[in-house]
Order: sequence, then C-alpha cells, then structure tokens
Amino acid sequence: MRDEGPVKIAVDAMGGDRAPEIIVQGAVQAALEQGVSLVMVGDEAAISRELKAAGYSGTLIEIQHCTEVVDMDESPSEAVRRKKDSSIRVAFELVKSGRAQAVVSAGNSGATLAVGTVVLGRLEGVDRPAIAAVFPTVKKGRTVVIDVGANVDCKPHFLFQFGVMAQAYARVALQINNPSIGLLSIGEEDTKGNDLVRQARQLFKDSNLNFIGNIEGRDVFSGAADVVVCDGFVGNVVLKLSEGIIEAVGVMIKEELMAGLVSRLGVVLTHGAFRRFKKKMDYAEFGGAPLLGINGVGLISHGRSSPQAIKNAIRSAAELVQGDVIGRLRVCLLDYEGLTALGRRQAKTGPPEINKTALDQP
Amino acid sequence: MRDEGPVKIAVDAMGGDRAPEIIVQGAVQAALEQGVSLVMVGDEAAISRELKAAGYSGTLIEIQHCTEVVDMDESPSEAVRRKKDSSIRVAFELVKSGRAQAVVSAGNSGATLAVGTVVLGRLEGVDRPAIAAVFPTVKKGRTVVIDVGANVDCKPHFLFQFGVMAQAYARVALQINNPSIGLLSIGEEDTKGNDLVRQARQLFKDSNLNFIGNIEGRDVFSGAADVVVCDGFVGNVVLKLSEGIIEAVGVMIKEELMAGLVSRLGVVLTHGAFRRFKKKMDYAEFGGAPLLGINGVGLISHGRSSPQAIKNAIRSAAELVQGDVIGRLRVCLLDYEGLTALGRRQAKTGPPEINKTALDQP
Repeated sequence: MRDEGPVKIAVDAMGGDRAPEIIVQGAVQAALEQGVSLVMVGDEAAISRELKAAGYSGTLIEIQHCTEVVDMDESPSEAVRRKKDSSIRVAFELVKSGRAQAVVSAGNSGATLAVGTVVLGRLEGVDRPAIAAVFPTVKKGRTVVIDVGANVDCKPHFLFQFGVMAQAYARVALQINNPSIGLLSIGEEDTKGNDLVRQARQLFKDSNLNFIGNIEGRDVFSGAADVVVCDGFVGNVVLKLSEGIIEAVGVMIKEELMAGLVSRLGVVLTHGAFRRFKKKMDYAEFGGAPLLGINGVGLISHGRSSPQAIKNAIRSAAELVQGDVIGRLRVCLLDYEGLTALGRRQAKTGPPEINKTALDQP
Repeated sequence: MRDEGPVKIAVDAMGGDRAPEIIVQGAVQAALEQGVSLVMVGDEAAISRELKAAGYSGTLIEIQHCTEVVDMDESPSEAVRRKKDSSIRVAFELVKSGRAQAVVSAGNSGATLAVGTVVLGRLEGVDRPAIAAVFPTVKKGRTVVIDVGANVDCKPHFLFQFGVMAQAYARVALQINNPSIGLLSIGEEDTKGNDLVRQARQLFKDSNLNFIGNIEGRDVFSGAADVVVCDGFVGNVVLKLSEGIIEAVGVMIKEELMAGLVSRLGVVLTHGAFRRFKKKMDYAEFGGAPLLGINGVGLISHGRSSPQAIKNAIRSAAELVQGDVIGRLRVCLLDYEGLTALGRRQAKTGPPEINKTALDQP
C-alpha cells in the first residue's frame, strides 16, 4: 500500500462528447461523495462556470488552466507533436511533477495513451502499453479484456506482456487472488488460432502464470477467464461489437414487446429490471478502462460518459493509486523479464516453425 | 435461373450433436412442407430407424449408405486424408456426379469446407473458399459476415474475393439489388485498422463494387452494410461472441426479472415477445451458413441445430440452386479477375508502403 498523504487525481475536463459540463458534474459528485482531491485541467473560465452551475464551492477541486484540446478524431501522433498545452498533456505533466497521482480522461483514447506514454514513459519490460476494458459476466464477476485498441499489429511477446499486466491489474482492481488468463482464439486446441496466437500461447505455457489456454468469443461474457488477452484490432472489435449487440438487443426486445397489448403491460412491470440490466452491461459504469504499461495511473472513460461514469472512474483511479498498481505491475513484469527477452529475440530472428497445413485452420 | 428438373439436396445425416435423429426430423419436415427431394447420407440402418420413428413413408427421401463419420473436433486435413467414406465426403461426391445439387451439413464445419473444396474444387478466381454467416439487424434486414472461420491468416486479396462472393450471395439469398460492402475495422478513417485491412481497403476502393468503407464492430448489428468482410479469425470471434452475448443477456435479464414480484408478473406477460426475439437472433434459424468459393452449393448448420433449422437450411440450399448462385458467383469473380491478379502479385512482392507511425494506430 502507498502511504504518502492524500491522493490527488488530474481530470481532463475538456475530453468527452459533452465536456466540460458532464466531466465537471462527475468530478463534483466524486468530491462530495468520496472526499477525493481533484485538479480539473482545461479552460479555466469554462470549468469555473460549470463548477458554479453545479453549485460547488468546496476546496477539494482546483483548476489547472491550459489552452488546447485534442479532438476526438485527431491522430495521436499529431496530438503528441503539436498540442503541447492540451488538457491531456498537462494532466499527465501534473503526474510527472508529482502534483497528481493519476489521470482520468473521457477524451481521445489513442491520444491519451500516446501522450501518457511520451510524458510518463513505459514501465521496464513493456514494449507496448495497452488499453484494458472491464466486462460484466454471467457469473456476476468481471473479466478484463486487453488490448481493446492500442496495438493493432502485435508480436507474440506483446500479447504475453498484456497478460502479465492485466493479471496484476485484476489483483488490485478486482481483488482476484490468482487471476486466470485466457488467450482469445477460435478453438480450444493448441493448434487452433492464427500464427500470432499460436506463438503467444507458447510463451504463456512456458510461464508460471495461471494460464488456462485458448478461450473462444462465447467465453468472454461467460466469465471463463478473469483476463482475456488479444491484439488491439480483435479487442476493439470485441468492445464495439458488444456495445452494438447490447444496443441492438434493447431495440429488438422493445419492438417485440410493443407489438402486443399484453406484453405492453408487461413492459411497464419489467421496466426497473431492464434499467438494472442496462446498468450492469454498461462497462463505462464500472469506472473506466485502464492504460497499462505506462509509468503512472491513467484511466479512459467513454466519450459518452455520464457524470456517474466519470465519478466511478475517479474512484477507480484513487483505488489503483492506493493499491499501488504501478508497483505491483513493476514486480510482475520483472518476474517475466527472461521470457519477454526471449520473445523479443524470436521476433527478430523469426518465430520457430509450427507444423501446420492450411486445412488445419478451420 | 436453373431449369434442369427438380432439385435434390444431399443431407449429411451423421453431422451434428444429435445426429441422425434431429437431422432426419428436419429432413422429413422439409420433404413434407417443401416437397423437396433429399438424399440422406450416412448409416442406412440408423437413418431408416429415424425415418420410421418420424413416421415418414414417402418417396422424396432416399438413403445413401456410408460407413464413416467425421467427428466434431477432428482436424479437417485428417478428415480429407483418412475418411474416404465419411458422410460429408459421400454427400459432396453425390454433387460431383450430378446425383444431387447441394450439400447440407450440421457437422464439423472446417472439415465440410475442406472436403467440399477437395471434392468439388474451387471456382476460378478464388484463392480461398470461405464461410459466410447471416446476422439479423435492427433495421429488420440481414447482414452477411464473411469469413467466419475458414481462413485465419489472410492476404488482402483474399478479403477482396470474400467481398465479391458475399455480394453475389446477398443478391441471390437476400434479394438485395446492389449489396453494400463494409470492411470490418476499428475506425472509419482510411488510416485506421491493421496492415491487412488497410491493404484490402485499397483493392475495394479500386473496384466498382458498392464499397462503403470501414465499418466498426458496433455496425454489424445496426445493418450499416449488407456485407461485412473480415478475416476468419476476427469473423469467428464475432460469430461466437455474438452467440455468447445473446446467451448472457438472456440469463442476466431473467435474473433481474425474477428478482422482483412485480417484474415476475411482467415475465408472464412478455413471454411470447422474448420467444420471438430469441428466434430472430438465432442465426441457425435463418438457414445455415453458405460455403462460398467451392464449385457447388454447400450449407453448414450449427451443431446444435433444431429440426426447424435443418429444414430452413434445406430450403436455403434449394433456393441457392434455383437462383443459380454458382453461375452468378462465376460471373462476378471474372469481373474482378484483374484486381485479384494484382492482389496476388502484391502478395508476392510485398505490399506497397503505407505511411504510418505506431502512434497513429489507436
């Protein structure tokens, strides 16, 4: 446990579809309910106005003015190169200088990771920082999926490092003792999957991680593994497909229900249950997606976050700081330094040959 | 339109979790309701027993005896090499010899595609046959996703051919005049996606296909495109994740509903609506996943298919034969021969350089 006085969280006040309004509202809720200290980073006048609108006059929230905002569709590399006074960048600078211990942003996620990496640097043993997301499962638990969009073309040892990092995160954030790790593939057998997955599988098998082998798409929501590892292309498809299906299911069920008089009465009676269900499926409600592999705590919230989601992300950020997630990540990464170095060497010299025929890839 | 007498469908009676019982029941329904001629391929004694149990004594169903069965988890290449008298193989041999015009199987999908490819061969211009699946959308339409599991490591021109084939299939099977094609990626901009997707995108853009650009995971169920193209690894994750989420949603909604007395009454009233919804989401109900790129009509049904699903697959198969889907595929593939040849050349010499930095891949 960390023990260096109260935690302070830097909040990117300008990131998100309805920033700074929604962000400030969430921050005010967090200050009032959690008593956490916050630095709101962004346009001072706009933030002050929103604080006033929210009726906040306490001392827990301070403002750090800056002049630039990274747009939601701006290229991460442009954001790094050109916007030296962006709210995302200034937030990470606050962590670097020790004035804050974590960053929460509902802005451009690629830019947040890129800026966080440039400002804070990577943890030793990490080739590529990644974005994790926390999914609900039918077992009433949670599953961490990593990477959900940071690294689209991966090497096998990147996937291995994702697993190591997400496992340390699951310990701190989900209080799971020995998190199980599954590799997302298209069949449980060793030979199933694409080249990347087959090679990553070997690295996991050679480690003493709690690796349970390949899992399939259907297992993500069944809670078969505490950590699900995949490359950022597949993970982003998983994330967005999940959102899309849950939305589609809502629309389709509603249509069916409204088609009959009897079931329309049923709608009234089941309203509360549907609301609870929707909240459970909303991963944004959980408290943001952690950036893993940078040298500091960073959480991304959905661009369409509610004040409630921002509040939850702030709570998560404080818990990750208090649970010393960065210290734990460091220890875990050092444990597997040898394997990761082996992965890097293999990536340079080419992977070992795996016997296969095209017909074995159904 | 094809016009050479009545259609006959070869049905793999031994493939599927509860074969031959469920398969024969579905076939009997198809014969009685659609008047279609069928050849049931498999163990004669077992098929006869099930036909008797189903009370069928008509003349539309005949039996083709064979001695072997491909197991659900058997490697496709083993199935091709070792099981020369399997029900899958004999079914495709019937098509090859002209005694049947299509194959329906609820067995091992990888093996079905592999055996179909070996027995019937590939259509000209096709490097890799693929498996398509038909998804429901909120727009009350259908979307064809290709490839859902046949080819895990793809070249850009494979993806292009998948699009050409699925577009011809959507014309015949879904009666869509000029099907729109979307490339599954992780952002709509040209620069988004992995190397494979960026290169495939160029081939689509250079064609006169109705290509609408990149689509995201959330768009699959929204019906943004009539055809969604991806590699078989991503497509298989999409297929199985969709199944898993729909199952999970069912469990979670039920739990919430049963938690309160009022909403429990609501459950009774909404029962019919939920049943209709579930049926709509069940892609197996639609009529099987087409094998595209082999020189004949083949449809795969889910291993857990109901008799209803088998019946629907048989109807689909007959419609694909009557709509001359193979003839249409041939014409479409020839149209794009040049582009495909270009794709092959690029695959040999390496892709053209695309300007990008790691930071541009959020």
